[in-house]
Amino acid sequence: TFVLDQAKAEAAFAAKRVINGRESMTFNLLPLKYQWAYDLYRTMKANHWEPEDIPMGKDIEQWRDEKALSDVERWIIRMGIGYFSAAEGIVGDNIQHVVRELVTAPELKLVLGRHAHEENIHADSLLYMIASLGINPHECEAMFEDVPTIVRKNEFVTRVSRDLRRELDLTQADNKKLLAKNIFVFGQCMEGTQFYGLFGMILSLYRQNKFPGIGQMFRYTLRDESNHIEVFRNLFMDLVDENREIWTPEFKEELRGFMREAIDLEKEFIRDCLPVNSIGLSAEDFLTYIDFIADRRLESCGLAPLNAGVKNPLPWLAEMMDIKKEQNFFEGRVTEYQKASSLTVASDDEL
Amino acid sequence: TFVLDQAKAEAAFAAKRVINGRESMTFNLLPLKYQWAYDLYRTMKANHWEPEDIPMGKDIEQWRDEKALSDVERWIIRMGIGYFSAAEGIVGDNIQHVVRELVTAPELKLVLGRHAHEENIHADSLLYMIASLGINPHECEAMFEDVPTIVRKNEFVTRVSRDLRRELDLTQADNKKLLAKNIFVFGQCMEGTQFYGLFGMILSLYRQNKFPGIGQMFRYTLRDESNHIEVFRNLFMDLVDENREIWTPEFKEELRGFMREAIDLEKEFIRDCLPVNSIGLSAEDFLTYIDFIADRRLESCGLAPLNAGVKNPLPWLAEMMDIKKEQNFFEGRVTEYQKASSLTVASDDEL
Ligand SMILES: [Ca+2]
Ligand SMILES: [Ca+2]
Repeated sequence: TFVLDQAKAEAAFAAKRVINGRESMTFNLLPLKYQWAYDLYRTMKANHWEPEDIPMGKDIEQWRDEKALSDVERWIIRMGIGYFSAAEGIVGDNIQHVVRELVTAPELKLVLGRHAHEENIHADSLLYMIASLGINPHECEAMFEDVPTIVRKNEFVTRVSRDLRRELDLTQADNKKLLAKNIFVFGQCMEGTQFYGLFGMILSLYRQNKFPGIGQMFRYTLRDESNHIEVFRNLFMDLVDENREIWTPEFKEELRGFMREAIDLEKEFIRDCLPVNSIGLSAEDFLTYIDFIADRRLESCGLAPLNAGVKNPLPWLAEMMDIKKEQNFFEGRVTEYQKASSLTVASDDEL
Repeated sequence: TFVLDQAKAEAAFAAKRVINGRESMTFNLLPLKYQWAYDLYRTMKANHWEPEDIPMGKDIEQWRDEKALSDVERWIIRMGIGYFSAAEGIVGDNIQHVVRELVTAPELKLVLGRHAHEENIHADSLLYMIASLGINPHECEAMFEDVPTIVRKNEFVTRVSRDLRRELDLTQADNKKLLAKNIFVFGQCMEGTQFYGLFGMILSLYRQNKFPGIGQMFRYTLRDESNHIEVFRNLFMDLVDENREIWTPEFKEELRGFMREAIDLEKEFIRDCLPVNSIGLSAEDFLTYIDFIADRRLESCGLAPLNAGVKNPLPWLAEMMDIKKEQNFFEGRVTEYQKASSLTVASDDEL
């Protein structure tokens, strides 16, 4: 048997950091330093769902019926599947090959692993939608290359990912900023803002009983996203907190500039999705919604809003998130994964 | 709307490869080229479990009762928790930061993501064991540094991981071999062989109704491992198949040499775990078992065995894997995650 060196072990704990922490081969979760990471890990696993739990019969019927849907409605579904097929993959790659590789504390790696896993589930759910509706599998990829507003949204995020794909000296303030930018852009600009145009449109169709299976999957996805945004927000705040030298007025302005760019790209994209207004789908409302949600993200990270005072034009979207309320609405087995004690629901002002 | 270029899309499909495939930002799972990857993904998710589903009351009672257990039995539990706390983290890092980054086909990334996720669950289950038994959380890390046979096992695998942690030119045969070696060593030598000494010892205690909660978690872990071994075996076989130039007699001998080294390290480790024989725990049986299981791994990859003709001294270990049979044994909610249609059980000769 060996003798435990208590002092050495406690020093190892004290050396836990978001970045530049002590590197150890042991996945020493305990004692937890970043309690929020383990708490979110537990919330996320309590929300576990799998796509095949959701019946797609009605969606298939509507998709095949030429009179059941307008061209705009079909177009929104194609855009949703096409955009997220790229976006979920990009987010998963960034977590696994960039952020998780640079972060040092094991409990942060744990929650990032769960985050990446949920991107996997989302990719699998898109595959399930494509297969159910009988969409040509090559179409999504072609869409990515041929719809300029999708290409621009994806280029925006991969730009802040690319520079980090090599081993960086994270003791340098400039490199710390690169990572902080990445975490801000992926969590708050992309998942936190640029996902919400399509979430709103697809859930607006769902409210009208169009694509109930796809709508349900996007409700679960949206609930997952609210945790992803929170993971990246906490990570960002702790990174800044432990590296105060990067938190300059210039850097704050730079981050606000990224959000401004994200909003512009999302608005162009929304105009592509909704070339004409459709029943229950007002392009103007979605554009305003993006301004509203972007400000919530900025404020949650201690940054000044870009459009102070803008009101939420889609309050029903918050209700859509309250999945528990309707847990018996679908006959699937989804709710079995949910443990009532830890099921969380986003509050209105997060939406 | 855009016009779909069918020819371009089909060419993109044809360019799917294990490595050096077409890089695309789209996570284009369909059409599936590596069907086994998606099938295993489905099997793995049907086996979903979470540690807190397993009651630990009996284990805690036994751990606190000075007379209930021998020193050797307590030592095995400490070694199990200490070794796997390091090992599961190392495997998860290797998948996410090495293998998944180099592999190009999305369905391979999907199953590797699930694999990494299960390492997360295993790490979380170890945390649950440590917290339940009230083991000093620093002890596991100290163990990793102070028990030489654990250090040597971990150094063995990180050696084949380290060289791959930068962007490699994978058109070079030598670099292809580095990756193939990594996949073989992690899947067949580490998860496939070096995990089995402790699996055998802990499940041997479980057979005697010692540590029923820990034993149950290791049964689920073992079932997961059998899928991990299969993921890495298929990945290895397809990599070799698409890059025949690396499959030389010298390379085959090199791989067998790695397995020889893995066996030696595991045998030293078993001797550390079992300094004296204990009831139902014969060191000699576990040593022979390692020779037996190592040969199964070699043969499954088209390599000649090292100890042809050696018999399985622990046939009961195969029965332990048949979790479905006893699905009502524990009152937990575990079986709810399991969909009967896809529950798989390892066949005897895999063990
Ligand atoms: Ca996400
Ligand atoms: Ca494993």
